[in-house]
Amino acid sequence: MERIKAAIIGASGYTGQELARLLLAHPHIELIAVTSRRYEGLPLTRLYPALAGATELIFSKEAPEALAGKADVLFLALPHQVSQNIMGVLAESGKKIVDLSADFRLADAAVYERWYGEHTQKELLGRFVYGLPELFRGEIRVKSFIANPGCYPTSVLLGLAPALGKGLIKADTIIIDSCSGVSGAGREPQVDTLFCEVAQGFKAYKVGGRHRHIPEIEQGLARLAGVEEITVSFTPHLLPVNRGILSTIYASLVEEQGEQELHSLYRDFYKDEPFVRVCPLGSLPNISAVAGSNYCDIAVAVDKRTGRLIVISAIDNLIKGAAGQAIQNMNIICGLPETTGLQANSIFP
Amino acid sequence: MERIKAAIIGASGYTGQELARLLLAHPHIELIAVTSRRYEGLPLTRLYPALAGATELIFSKEAPEALAGKADVLFLALPHQVSQNIMGVLAESGKKIVDLSADFRLADAAVYERWYGEHTQKELLGRFVYGLPELFRGEIRVKSFIANPGCYPTSVLLGLAPALGKGLIKADTIIIDSCSGVSGAGREPQVDTLFCEVAQGFKAYKVGGRHRHIPEIEQGLARLAGVEEITVSFTPHLLPVNRGILSTIYASLVEEQGEQELHSLYRDFYKDEPFVRVCPLGSLPNISAVAGSNYCDIAVAVDKRTGRLIVISAIDNLIKGAAGQAIQNMNIICGLPETTGLQANSIFP
Amino acid sequence: MERIKAAIIGASGYTGQELARLLLAHPHIELIAVTSRRYEGLPLTRLYPALAGATELIFSKEAPEALAGKADVLFLALPHQVSQNIMGVLAESGKKIVDLSADFRLADAAVYERWYGEHTQKELLGRFVYGLPELFRGEIRVKSFIANPGCYPTSVLLGLAPALGKGLIKADTIIIDSCSGVSGAGREPQVDTLFCEVAQGFKAYKVGGRHRHIPEIEQGLARLAGVEEITVSFTPHLLPVNRGILSTIYASLVEEQGEQELHSLYRDFYKDEPFVRVCPLGSLPNISAVAGSNYCDIAVAVDKRTGRLIVISAIDNLIKGAAGQAIQNMNIICGLPETTGLQANSIFP
Amino acid sequence: MERIKAAIIGASGYTGQELARLLLAHPHIELIAVTSRRYEGLPLTRLYPALAGATELIFSKEAPEALAGKADVLFLALPHQVSQNIMGVLAESGKKIVDLSADFRLADAAVYERWYGEHTQKELLGRFVYGLPELFRGEIRVKSFIANPGCYPTSVLLGLAPALGKGLIKADTIIIDSCSGVSGAGREPQVDTLFCEVAQGFKAYKVGGRHRHIPEIEQGLARLAGVEEITVSFTPHLLPVNRGILSTIYASLVEEQGEQELHSLYRDFYKDEPFVRVCPLGSLPNISAVAGSNYCDIAVAVDKRTGRLIVISAIDNLIKGAAGQAIQNMNIICGLPETTGLQANSIFP
Repeated sequence: MERIKAAIIGASGYTGQELARLLLAHPHIELIAVTSRRYEGLPLTRLYPALAGATELIFSKEAPEALAGKADVLFLALPHQVSQNIMGVLAESGKKIVDLSADFRLADAAVYERWYGEHTQKELLGRFVYGLPELFRGEIRVKSFIANPGCYPTSVLLGLAPALGKGLIKADTIIIDSCSGVSGAGREPQVDTLFCEVAQGFKAYKVGGRHRHIPEIEQGLARLAGVEEITVSFTPHLLPVNRGILSTIYASLVEEQGEQELHSLYRDFYKDEPFVRVCPLGSLPNISAVAGSNYCDIAVAVDKRTGRLIVISAIDNLIKGAAGQAIQNMNIICGLPETTGLQANSIFP
Repeated sequence: MERIKAAIIGASGYTGQELARLLLAHPHIELIAVTSRRYEGLPLTRLYPALAGATELIFSKEAPEALAGKADVLFLALPHQVSQNIMGVLAESGKKIVDLSADFRLADAAVYERWYGEHTQKELLGRFVYGLPELFRGEIRVKSFIANPGCYPTSVLLGLAPALGKGLIKADTIIIDSCSGVSGAGREPQVDTLFCEVAQGFKAYKVGGRHRHIPEIEQGLARLAGVEEITVSFTPHLLPVNRGILSTIYASLVEEQGEQELHSLYRDFYKDEPFVRVCPLGSLPNISAVAGSNYCDIAVAVDKRTGRLIVISAIDNLIKGAAGQAIQNMNIICGLPETTGLQANSIFP
Repeated sequence: MERIKAAIIGASGYTGQELARLLLAHPHIELIAVTSRRYEGLPLTRLYPALAGATELIFSKEAPEALAGKADVLFLALPHQVSQNIMGVLAESGKKIVDLSADFRLADAAVYERWYGEHTQKELLGRFVYGLPELFRGEIRVKSFIANPGCYPTSVLLGLAPALGKGLIKADTIIIDSCSGVSGAGREPQVDTLFCEVAQGFKAYKVGGRHRHIPEIEQGLARLAGVEEITVSFTPHLLPVNRGILSTIYASLVEEQGEQELHSLYRDFYKDEPFVRVCPLGSLPNISAVAGSNYCDIAVAVDKRTGRLIVISAIDNLIKGAAGQAIQNMNIICGLPETTGLQANSIFP
Repeated sequence: MERIKAAIIGASGYTGQELARLLLAHPHIELIAVTSRRYEGLPLTRLYPALAGATELIFSKEAPEALAGKADVLFLALPHQVSQNIMGVLAESGKKIVDLSADFRLADAAVYERWYGEHTQKELLGRFVYGLPELFRGEIRVKSFIANPGCYPTSVLLGLAPALGKGLIKADTIIIDSCSGVSGAGREPQVDTLFCEVAQGFKAYKVGGRHRHIPEIEQGLARLAGVEEITVSFTPHLLPVNRGILSTIYASLVEEQGEQELHSLYRDFYKDEPFVRVCPLGSLPNISAVAGSNYCDIAVAVDKRTGRLIVISAIDNLIKGAAGQAIQNMNIICGLPETTGLQANSIFP
């Protein structure tokens, strides 16, 4: 089988290099280009010595259209609003696209503009599919352009889908308390993500409904519930770990449920999913058991005293929350087995 | 002024040594004894070299009555159910007592027995006061026996008191998501608190209303609200940091409130409190800003989209959540200025 | 190709589970058994949830001879002196053996007994080969029993081999300053390896020529230098990281050398080695670039002011320093390509 | 007693704020100004919320001469070469000065210029004393201008002084392997000190005699040995901890020495020093036992097999290695008891 040619546009950040690492080890992919304006001319391994031995690639600043000319799949690991700027050109190339920015995740451009700023490519929105395979695989299969989900939304949507789909919880009682590792903040140097500022610390940020992943979470939940709109409370926190998101999600049960039944429901829902592991009853997810893997670990509990469902879900923000899911989507739209190149378990400790 | 003589019963754990550190630096205290069965005969500084230069104390296993004979104040840093066993003897000694276990925190012995096991000293319960000075200072002043609060309850009760006292929130909507540093689990070796198990990890534990601090939280909240009973959801998590608790607390507002008003309410409520710092609006607590100090940092936010109040409170679990609060209580019952020996700011980074 | 059957004796520790992780992903291996006395009957994934999805294996306590009856290769991840006790039986089985303990690393039983205690299987020593493939591949190929090297010795021997082999350094001036992650201390709970004792700390241990890896280092260096005996100073330190060893090695140069020449010498020496990466001049190893991989990263520098060579080498103590090297050895003695199952790059950050 | 007025020039970095923390708690000091160009107008507590409650100071950008007009003591926590630029003005003010930069540490301007660049205030060099009180207290007492030592040199000079002064070691065999916490790199955002780059990593830097603290170390050692010149090998490493330096120092003994004698020698040498703790034989320094304190912990061992002395010394780089030592020096030149404001023990864990 001839290898599919892939390029990463914006490969110098943590997500970009993670895409590179996974693609370099992918048996059916040839990674042909990595771009970076700032580091043009430097070997990828100069920035990321961990990749030495796996590649000789040099950062280029090739134009998107040139890349589209020679690659079969284009991964965009660019900041939001930067991605849309080159999408017009790429969309005409006929190549497959996986966009890891937020630019094409929200179906409603007005919502996008309220949270992110101007959207200049509204007409392209309809050509993208929201790439959360476990929930929307059918739609993904028939598209060529993927809007790869955000990290927090991935953990929340996978965590709530079974209960929400079955109508077991009251949608207006959903509270999401999430904690993310520092790599989620990127590699751009800033005081807030210095080692000394983060180690031995822990804090919430963007409290009170201010985080940009909220509309994406709400859009997804509403689709899962089959309703017009769901409004949630979402509080992100910064954890002193490199990778991982753990979301603790609360919702009132419509009626009493046993933990056992709920657990069975979740097990059933995800029984054919290669990347979702519903923890045995009595066992709980830990970021360290998913970091480095494409898994999402989920546990359910019932707080009988208050009638609430508590769901805990954990992912690696850079893999299932970004680069791994991007490749999972690529596998689907390229007709490869969905798990190809993504089967590594977490390395512990 | 003659120095008050203090002894620590059960001084080999993290809380015990933290009491020792603070008492050794306290200008009006002479620490005359530290006990430990396991380490009898060893210098305190052998276990805790950080204290070298400050003390020559040797762990003894003196009997409680002997200690009561020579000390003015007794601190008990023992596991629950061990504390009550020696309390009968101590209570007759006429000495002041600060108990850091859970044994005398719950006014209702039946509740204690549901969560902890048998209580053999029920008749002593009434002689203890729940030692959270910011909320119950009046009662503390007139007592000699302190039941020193748990770490999670301290962070929660200080966080909710202003809003709950004013009737601003619906008591049945309270959800508490708390994260604690590893020192809260003590110094007894166990796989779960090994460096390799904790570093780069994050997990919830005792999910679904199973943590023993729940009845203590609910007892305190009910008192603050002036109602019979409040039931909450409480989920603790284990953070990869040495010290600190951060609680993110959610509750539905009875009616719309502005963040500014709420902030003023909190500022007012705590304006004379030396150990509570209400963060400036727009600023949020971080464990690293309270670790090493007796401060509780609190921030309030309103999630307008959902009508919820979000309170975030942070303390050092070993200081404001244990040893520091114990000394604060001792200062009160011994007639010393409440802040004596407790004024250190956090060391950052 | 039929898969080779492997069993791990003593699989509940960090090294044992790392062997399991690597073997489960190895394309030519079928892992048929993992043993543990303490955890008999529990699934491997109960202790190590990171492996969920990859295996259903249950810890057994099958006798060594039974395992030898059905496996083609036996990995022993047991404490020293425990390993030798079962070696008599295993040695007669005709199966291939990779022993990760220290029991068969030292050719001279008297040296072993000076550092470790009694050796009851001296007659088997000659059947084992010291399994450091980059240096002794020829001998390994023709043997069936591997004494898998210690973690510190691996980092030191690979670091010094090129310079020592060429006679460039004075053997009596070698000083080795090594730092290891906490997983090197195993998973047995003890105060010293608790999170709170290690995080934010750093210390040396067994200072003054007291660490048991010294005779193994000296045996290896003497072989490389072709001399009777070499005596070194070796100081291990405990790093607050999960994995990794970094050794900074000092030795006086016999005569002046340029950094460029030395660098070329090292590049040449390791040019065909798939698992040794000599860093570009000006670049230095970091534990985080090798952790999770089977690589050893090496840099050389010359301190012109003092005429000393400084070599820095980094490995993952659980992989190149234990489980990975064990599999590398197994590949060799089983006739598989040496890199099979070991090609993953480090996951960063 | 009237309080001495102090100002900190360049107070926004980690060292500056640590000076502020210590001075704010110092019983005889009034901190009257903190300067920062970048943060002018912001409260000190906005950058460092840990200090909330202790101060209302606002960063100003007052001119040095204005500050000299109202303060009694001036602390300069500026980068090297910036400090010298304002020293001309300050030196004429008649006020006491503690300079924490490298600008006045090296007696020989030519050496300074070889390692740091131009020195424009050579004529002031003679008015400064190298402020390492344990070794040069006599000279410090009679001066008004302090060149506060570097962090690495402090750990090395205190570690070697007793042995070197007695002529027990061969000066040309000294090898220093040091590891520093990340705060030593300052608070300026850069990729290398981001959390994700440092956590779970460990590396050497400036290997091969390239670190600027080398001439300072060598100048100090030569003075201690009473010789013209000493040349050492010095390798710094970056540790994933916030604070602390641990130096492991090797040197060949001139003649055989017992550990016991050496230990006694060290104990004797430092017996009246309040801030040096020679560890009991068999016990070794740990960064976590000195972090947060002004202590230097030292252990000695003899490697009998190689005839080498091994000294291990640990300090907090921001306290004994910077701000604490600066205040210790200030206490001396202001006639205060040397330990004032510096008696806190390390907070552990």
